[in-house]
Amino acid sequence: MAGGSGTRFWPRSREKCPKHLLEIIGKGSMLQNTVKRLEGIVRNEDIFVVTNRLQKAQLIKQLPKVPEENIIVEPVGRNTAPCIGLAAVHVRRADPASVMIVLPADHLIRDVEEFRRVLRLAVQTADESGSLLTIGIKPTHPETGYGYIQINNEEGPQNPFFSRGVLKVRAFAEKPNLQTAERFLASGDFLWNSGMFVWRVDVILSQLEKRLPDLHEELFNIGRAIDTPQYQQTLELVYGMIRGISIDYGVMEKADEVYVIPGSFGWNDLGSWDEVARVSGKDDGGNTITGTVIQKDMRNSFVYSPGKVVAAIGIEDLIVVNTDDALLICRKGRSQEVKEISDYLKRKQMSEFL
Amino acid sequence: MAGGSGTRFWPRSREKCPKHLLEIIGKGSMLQNTVKRLEGIVRNEDIFVVTNRLQKAQLIKQLPKVPEENIIVEPVGRNTAPCIGLAAVHVRRADPASVMIVLPADHLIRDVEEFRRVLRLAVQTADESGSLLTIGIKPTHPETGYGYIQINNEEGPQNPFFSRGVLKVRAFAEKPNLQTAERFLASGDFLWNSGMFVWRVDVILSQLEKRLPDLHEELFNIGRAIDTPQYQQTLELVYGMIRGISIDYGVMEKADEVYVIPGSFGWNDLGSWDEVARVSGKDDGGNTITGTVIQKDMRNSFVYSPGKVVAAIGIEDLIVVNTDDALLICRKGRSQEVKEISDYLKRKQMSEFL
Repeated sequence: MAGGSGTRFWPRSREKCPKHLLEIIGKGSMLQNTVKRLEGIVRNEDIFVVTNRLQKAQLIKQLPKVPEENIIVEPVGRNTAPCIGLAAVHVRRADPASVMIVLPADHLIRDVEEFRRVLRLAVQTADESGSLLTIGIKPTHPETGYGYIQINNEEGPQNPFFSRGVLKVRAFAEKPNLQTAERFLASGDFLWNSGMFVWRVDVILSQLEKRLPDLHEELFNIGRAIDTPQYQQTLELVYGMIRGISIDYGVMEKADEVYVIPGSFGWNDLGSWDEVARVSGKDDGGNTITGTVIQKDMRNSFVYSPGKVVAAIGIEDLIVVNTDDALLICRKGRSQEVKEISDYLKRKQMSEFL
Repeated sequence: MAGGSGTRFWPRSREKCPKHLLEIIGKGSMLQNTVKRLEGIVRNEDIFVVTNRLQKAQLIKQLPKVPEENIIVEPVGRNTAPCIGLAAVHVRRADPASVMIVLPADHLIRDVEEFRRVLRLAVQTADESGSLLTIGIKPTHPETGYGYIQINNEEGPQNPFFSRGVLKVRAFAEKPNLQTAERFLASGDFLWNSGMFVWRVDVILSQLEKRLPDLHEELFNIGRAIDTPQYQQTLELVYGMIRGISIDYGVMEKADEVYVIPGSFGWNDLGSWDEVARVSGKDDGGNTITGTVIQKDMRNSFVYSPGKVVAAIGIEDLIVVNTDDALLICRKGRSQEVKEISDYLKRKQMSEFL
């Protein structure tokens, strides 16, 4: 899934170049790293990427090994359920016995080997059991920016995959407030919802048929139109009609046989500049710097300015992102509000900066 | 005098475009406004500008009404005494009976009419008396960034110009510390030294002969070479030899008949970005903005970014100067340290940013 607009990473992220197409941390874009992490697990020709029209060209350039016909373009974004359903009908056409791994393209994962171990276990379990699997992250702090998954510890003995480290899901929880998040963390029963899923393609499609029959019917129409001249028209017709709904709300929360595999692979969804600053390497003053920065008493700041020299005097706790045509200066802890800047630019029709 | 490098206004000021060639406050460059303030007092053909080689072209462009032959180029900067002496030999050649007004080209003056009144009084007094006159500024706060002039209140009756508001100078004082500055302010006997002087050209040259005979001899050689093919060579030879010295230290502090006219015309030497921020108009949040700035909880800040959109979230007490190739972010109160950035760039030979 590589279609987000990533407005929280303005001014680096733009409509044509959102977060997952950027090199935010380390080498390679987040999308390229997502694909690279699948080496040894998924062949390049089995990788499907769902994106939008604006990003397609850039995406093809970034993923030369992924067949161009595997790049699926949504006419508009309609949240994750239609996106996953659309991918599923394409995957089923390629091989109806497929196990599908659903991954957001904009996550940071530090321990790739552990991630691959978890994925392999998920694929094996999904293939054998016909269940819906999700990857949960062992929480390290009471984060209020993520959804949570409650595990069902009591069903241990009845859970046939318990010994493998595959746990039964009791419930999904929306983003909690801090008090609730602290309770979740203390209980030991909750994992962060990473938005990564694994299931057989026939299983997710029959779940969609059961939980979201209208969507399933439209997906069926799209599926029939693949490789025909009617595909584009059908796709646009359907997307103009269907409503946006998340796979969590539409399917996962309602399904019975849902399992989760807890992973500890240094996961971070990099939801904001604060998050990027938090996980980035720092100098003695607590600063993360990209570009030439002449600093005098700069502390605990994040400065990204690859093209321009920056002089910083006596500043602290700032996030500075300096691109060719725009500059962000934001107090640390407030970078969630960067989204509002994008909203403002949209309202004011300053589309050249979007 | 328009030859300074204005390193404290980096990154706006550059070697080729220092403070006095910039439009820092209001319309027109500081140099253009300095010339404009002389309307009705000095004819354009009587205006001489001393500058350096790097700035000459830009300066001629900014002052189309000043004759190009009146632009005097110093091979190197040697402080104010040689600069003023060089101008004096040019002025004497034009008219040996001239009264000379010496003005820095980078001061802000709010009340032009009052300024002109003071200048006219100074010219009249200098012409009649053959004294050295300086313009003093009535201090409004215990500033430590300026030199001070102590007036001689006791000599009132003996001072022939006392009734006009022209006061005798007792002493010049260097930039004081805060305690001393407070004492100066409380005493009522001290004025800020504006660096503006008025005298007959024959008087200043004979003072230079008396106080700085070596310099005077070299100026004499330059004077003889004006309008000959030897001028440039003589000038360079002399400037390679003479030492830098200020007119304050070299002449004013040692001379006997020095007068000062106190002025209250909203003077500011704009010595730093802090100073510019202080005298600039502000919005409700205490911010001064040039360019498109999308602000959220920005307070008491100065943002200059004519070319690029800026988003500011939760910041306060910052000075932000964003030019085509460089960015300054400085805590308010620390912009004196901007000079150190220039020094650093010089040391690191990053001359493209100087």
